[in-house]
Amino acid sequence: MTGFERAGRLRFGVNYTPSRHWFHSWYDMDLDAARRDLDQIAALGADHIRAFCLWPVFQPNAAFVNPRAVDDLRALVDAAAAAGLDVTVDAIQGHLSSFDFLPSWVVTWHEANLFTDPRVRAAQAHYLRTLGAALADRPNVVGYQLGNELDNLVARNPATAGQVDAYLDDLLAAASEALPDRLVTHSAYDAAFYTDGHPFTPQQCARKGGMTTVHPWVFSADCARRYGPLSVAATHLAGYLIELAKAYATDPARRVWVQEAGAPQPHVPAGDAAAFTEATLRNVATCTDVPAVTWWCSHDVDPALADFPELEYTLGLIDLAGRTKPAGRAVAGLIREYAADPPVPVRRDTALVFDGGDLDSRSASAPGGSFFDAWMAHAAAGERLVVVLARDTGDTDLLAARGITTLARP
Amino acid sequence: MTGFERAGRLRFGVNYTPSRHWFHSWYDMDLDAARRDLDQIAALGADHIRAFCLWPVFQPNAAFVNPRAVDDLRALVDAAAAAGLDVTVDAIQGHLSSFDFLPSWVVTWHEANLFTDPRVRAAQAHYLRTLGAALADRPNVVGYQLGNELDNLVARNPATAGQVDAYLDDLLAAASEALPDRLVTHSAYDAAFYTDGHPFTPQQCARKGGMTTVHPWVFSADCARRYGPLSVAATHLAGYLIELAKAYATDPARRVWVQEAGAPQPHVPAGDAAAFTEATLRNVATCTDVPAVTWWCSHDVDPALADFPELEYTLGLIDLAGRTKPAGRAVAGLIREYAADPPVPVRRDTALVFDGGDLDSRSASAPGGSFFDAWMAHAAAGERLVVVLARDTGDTDLLAARGITTLARP
Repeated sequence: MTGFERAGRLRFGVNYTPSRHWFHSWYDMDLDAARRDLDQIAALGADHIRAFCLWPVFQPNAAFVNPRAVDDLRALVDAAAAAGLDVTVDAIQGHLSSFDFLPSWVVTWHEANLFTDPRVRAAQAHYLRTLGAALADRPNVVGYQLGNELDNLVARNPATAGQVDAYLDDLLAAASEALPDRLVTHSAYDAAFYTDGHPFTPQQCARKGGMTTVHPWVFSADCARRYGPLSVAATHLAGYLIELAKAYATDPARRVWVQEAGAPQPHVPAGDAAAFTEATLRNVATCTDVPAVTWWCSHDVDPALADFPELEYTLGLIDLAGRTKPAGRAVAGLIREYAADPPVPVRRDTALVFDGGDLDSRSASAPGGSFFDAWMAHAAAGERLVVVLARDTGDTDLLAARGITTLARP
Repeated sequence: MTGFERAGRLRFGVNYTPSRHWFHSWYDMDLDAARRDLDQIAALGADHIRAFCLWPVFQPNAAFVNPRAVDDLRALVDAAAAAGLDVTVDAIQGHLSSFDFLPSWVVTWHEANLFTDPRVRAAQAHYLRTLGAALADRPNVVGYQLGNELDNLVARNPATAGQVDAYLDDLLAAASEALPDRLVTHSAYDAAFYTDGHPFTPQQCARKGGMTTVHPWVFSADCARRYGPLSVAATHLAGYLIELAKAYATDPARRVWVQEAGAPQPHVPAGDAAAFTEATLRNVATCTDVPAVTWWCSHDVDPALADFPELEYTLGLIDLAGRTKPAGRAVAGLIREYAADPPVPVRRDTALVFDGGDLDSRSASAPGGSFFDAWMAHAAAGERLVVVLARDTGDTDLLAARGITTLARP
């Protein structure tokens, strides 16, 4: 398994949101500012960051990958190395914090479907190969992802699940070709797990790419407001989504990377952020097959920048003055604790059976859904269950490989 | 009249299309490459360029004008000065050669109408004020334009003519506020003159901003194909549009800047480009009240770049190796000739009456329309007429001020 995983260790990282100019820093890279950010991130004890490219800056023309942007990324990767940080790179942004960054060659007069248009897909593959090749000599680049939550782009680029399958296969192959020895992944926001009819599917998440990635956000399906910010449901959401994702895997040892989780206000009030963060992370640490958690995010968004959803401004573990916030101290404290006394994942032998998971039967597993509530009722009673799909309950090999001996019904 | 106009002189300039990376050079400014381009442009004898910003690079967030991009623009302006060139700056691109460059804060999840949304309009005004202020100390910045052919954006940002009026008034005021002593203009592609119902109007062109700008392209309404690339209609198109634009002015001495004209293949075959260019410019030089012609464009587009309309690749007066092409030699030859022997505009006293020009009665004046054909029939007979709107034929003061003594009917 790729260089991302560390045997016997749960890795902690942060999604890197530059304190100076947010991701607009790609238009105006200031390496000294980046180094300060990275030192602050390293001081939390984090061992990796996710770095997000802005697609139009990196590939302003379908046939042109911008060499300065590539150089800036390599310099950022090197600055991270100097701070002792590994990096996973997301190429196609694509979507970040409500904003879509789309190059001019896929919009308006050149509008074309990102997922199904063969020329646009070939151009994305070209970008992934070019960028990947430029990262190949950087040993601290441990992961390469197509892009952040590509399913946010599907509203304006309609595709069937089969078309998304083909898209992901195509682009994952291109990314792997450039970086064959690194972790290559894709990601989706949790509609892939929760929303009936959504063309990004749990099967894609759990079976394509070198690892499953999950983004358990407590604003999804209004989880934190529905159950409370420090409720069992909110603080076990990440752990739950890990188990749900594993149910869709065909590989019984499939790894699940908690790639984005955070404490968004007002869903989680500022005063509860530290407690929410610590409880979430402690629950994640009990799960097997989880190599890493990457918290969203490193730095607050400058309030001088306009038009972000309110919750985005205050998601940082570090404020704009470089001070660690309470949730950041909670993360740092846990990292220290786990470094001294590594958490031991708990092998669980009882699986809750989910009778769903096809294209049109996912919503019962979303916050507020019957399956979700059943799982959380067990969690509230101190019983942490794994999940198995109803259709797999006769697959004794799979159950045995996963260590499942008991099936519970919701 | 602003520093753009030179008494008794027809200025020649080019629309600057960087040879290296086209306008993607804003992502990766190479001043040495720009200096080579500018020296080649100056060697033609041109005295000015139009410089085009990429809006998302300059204003990636509604509240953030990117200081590096501004610095790059100032450096480009200074490089132009070193080459002996004045500069007019277009801010909101917006639209260039079929591509729309739109910042993430006006598209998809943040979609908002560029012309009518008050917040988006205020943000554009902020950009124009900020950029203008940064140019104020550069004496060779002689013009400032809202953006190139903003009406190309109207298809996806519907607005009424009244709303466009308000938009232009608002943004022209913002631009003028920053650069009160310079020429401040707006521009539209020629649908404003030719297309019934189009919300950008000839009245706006002829009455708002410090000068009228016209973009007589022979591909519009298939002019060159309909009449022939070296026909009277094609080679007099720019002269015709000048006269048509003057008919809409309320100021009888309103200046008209031929801001874009070019010899697009295959509408004008490569072998005819020099003859077409020279004939067009000689006809323009006979018109009164024309301070400048700015040819499209300086440099060919690198064929390695994808997705441009075919005609865009070969529009340069200079090829990618820095060699002046036949049309470039025609321009350079005329500039030399006119420097030694300045052309004398011909005062014409006969006006062809256009019974149209309201929102829904413009198409007769387009290539292929009855008024257009009538004007060109006179031109073919050696009679170059000015144009007056039917509604103005009773305005004896206006006719007198324009020197019109005879009215001809189509």
